[in-house]
Amino acid sequence: MHPPFETVAWVGALPGRLRLLDQTRLPEVEVYETYDDVAAIQDAIRRLVVRGAPAIGVAAAYGLVVGAQTALGSDGAGLTETLERTAAELDAARPTAVNLRWALERMLAHDARVRETADVAARVERLLAEAERIAKEDREQCLAMGEHGARFLRDKRRVLTHCNAGALATAGIGTALAPIYVATSQGVELAVFANETRPLLQGARLTSWELARAGVDVTLITDGMGASLMRAGRVDAVIVGSDRIARNGDVCNKIGTYAVALAARAHGLPFYVVAPRSTFDARAATGADIPIELRDRAEIVAGMGRVIAPEGIGVHNPAFDVTPAEFVTAIVTEAGVIEAPNEDEVVRHLALEW
Amino acid sequence: MHPPFETVAWVGALPGRLRLLDQTRLPEVEVYETYDDVAAIQDAIRRLVVRGAPAIGVAAAYGLVVGAQTALGSDGAGLTETLERTAAELDAARPTAVNLRWALERMLAHDARVRETADVAARVERLLAEAERIAKEDREQCLAMGEHGARFLRDKRRVLTHCNAGALATAGIGTALAPIYVATSQGVELAVFANETRPLLQGARLTSWELARAGVDVTLITDGMGASLMRAGRVDAVIVGSDRIARNGDVCNKIGTYAVALAARAHGLPFYVVAPRSTFDARAATGADIPIELRDRAEIVAGMGRVIAPEGIGVHNPAFDVTPAEFVTAIVTEAGVIEAPNEDEVVRHLALEW
Repeated sequence: MHPPFETVAWVGALPGRLRLLDQTRLPEVEVYETYDDVAAIQDAIRRLVVRGAPAIGVAAAYGLVVGAQTALGSDGAGLTETLERTAAELDAARPTAVNLRWALERMLAHDARVRETADVAARVERLLAEAERIAKEDREQCLAMGEHGARFLRDKRRVLTHCNAGALATAGIGTALAPIYVATSQGVELAVFANETRPLLQGARLTSWELARAGVDVTLITDGMGASLMRAGRVDAVIVGSDRIARNGDVCNKIGTYAVALAARAHGLPFYVVAPRSTFDARAATGADIPIELRDRAEIVAGMGRVIAPEGIGVHNPAFDVTPAEFVTAIVTEAGVIEAPNEDEVVRHLALEW
Repeated sequence: MHPPFETVAWVGALPGRLRLLDQTRLPEVEVYETYDDVAAIQDAIRRLVVRGAPAIGVAAAYGLVVGAQTALGSDGAGLTETLERTAAELDAARPTAVNLRWALERMLAHDARVRETADVAARVERLLAEAERIAKEDREQCLAMGEHGARFLRDKRRVLTHCNAGALATAGIGTALAPIYVATSQGVELAVFANETRPLLQGARLTSWELARAGVDVTLITDGMGASLMRAGRVDAVIVGSDRIARNGDVCNKIGTYAVALAARAHGLPFYVVAPRSTFDARAATGADIPIELRDRAEIVAGMGRVIAPEGIGVHNPAFDVTPAEFVTAIVTEAGVIEAPNEDEVVRHLALEW
């Protein structure tokens, strides 16, 4: 079921390397880069070589191992100091994706539990094992999200998605695209409209690439076209991922998602969000508490190989927007489905045993 | 008040040439091309060297003169035949912009009125005079639309526009941008958000270029950003042009306009359409009667200097969409304002004496 590529992986034992599929070079070429340097990993996360909240979390966990293995010759205090410095460095790479911090905190907490009884080499081994567990859980979670979400697609043949929340955004089969892969494997014939997702074109470069490789019928459109396709009755459902979800169910996702949600509501179409429970930020009461990363003007003005706007004009480039919970038909996680999400439903769902 | 460039003009007397500002080369360079060949003019209209319904109408009128002057040595029947052939050739360049056919029909009707009493040279002179009149009326209409529309902007300081309905789309100060130029000249300080307008980026390449040249504060955004700016309370009004308006007030405009209208309605913001009365198509009862031009996949996949999507995927590229009249706060024409447009109001407005 998984498309034939590997987004994020560890290669070798210890010392080993983080390997990333360089997504900045898709769809032209499929190039893998290996990393044994924390600064280069921070830079790769910042430059979107790896992107998508779950994949960033896995990459950060492996990145912490890359940092840890440089302290294999030092004492316990030296490793602890290296881990804290490395975690801070990796955490600074992207401000919005909650999985980045979540994965780093989980790794540090794991180390803290074994620190008293394990030597430096054993601690680094345990960190690698924990990172591998995070990756394995991500794969399992993607599959579970796919299975929970696929039931919404059995009678919804024409699905619109925004950005890339697919196998390229995770270590597994994706979040928003996971139900598409699962439904397809069950024999459901889906047709997917992929919003190109300006400014960085993750929908054009990544979603259409990975769906086509997986043999799924995909049609590329610009971000402004979905609303009129909906009005023409040519879309049955919207399915997107999320970078962070507030306690009340407000969904932070790639810029442009909110406009899609407005259009879906106006046309009576279901709007599904698929994201692992690690995407929920208990510290964010509502979407207003989620920091929105402002990115460089060059991504809009010069990001596609040609300068498309004159010098000297203002440019506004937020990476994300917030879709209020009231627009969300259901949030699908690895643990099941939150229908008509609100704070009560979210709290109840997150308390489920996994 | 007019920005310092000339979109469409006639140079010389007879035989003369059509001169166009080559908008495919903006914003990098401001290049003017002259034409004395109908096929090249048809190609220029098709390639969007000149675009915007009113400017296309003026260019087509001058284009008919370019054709007519090749028949200066023939007899009356030869000129008539040349005019009909030239009009058909120019009319085929773009299927949706009603002004193209409107201008050609007006020119042919003018010639039909003088044909019995004028010789070939006089007829061609009359055709040039009629084309100049169309251009002059366009300039006057732009100014009138600007004055009628400016009253909506006195207390609406932050305006969002989609595509380019500016001086680059007309022989005058534009349609949607005309109220912005007039209000600015009256001392109103406006801030304009320009949607980049994928796939062909008229907002980035043209609107931000012309507003910046005119000294208007302009901020470029991608097409998916406006909705969240509205939710954040950072937009006061939307103002767009139109390529064709149905009898019931349904507005056909650049793809992406309908999504903006949905967002404006969801946030209680006024949505203004500014277009000359020649944009109304009495043969279209509703928007469903307006043909929507489907353009080449390459505009989306390879239009910005880099191939952004893999081979073999589907691509959907309609050039326009329809915004139902119920979403339109007012249509501003050169004759005044149609508030809450519907068929009765449209018919009453179009019957006004100009």
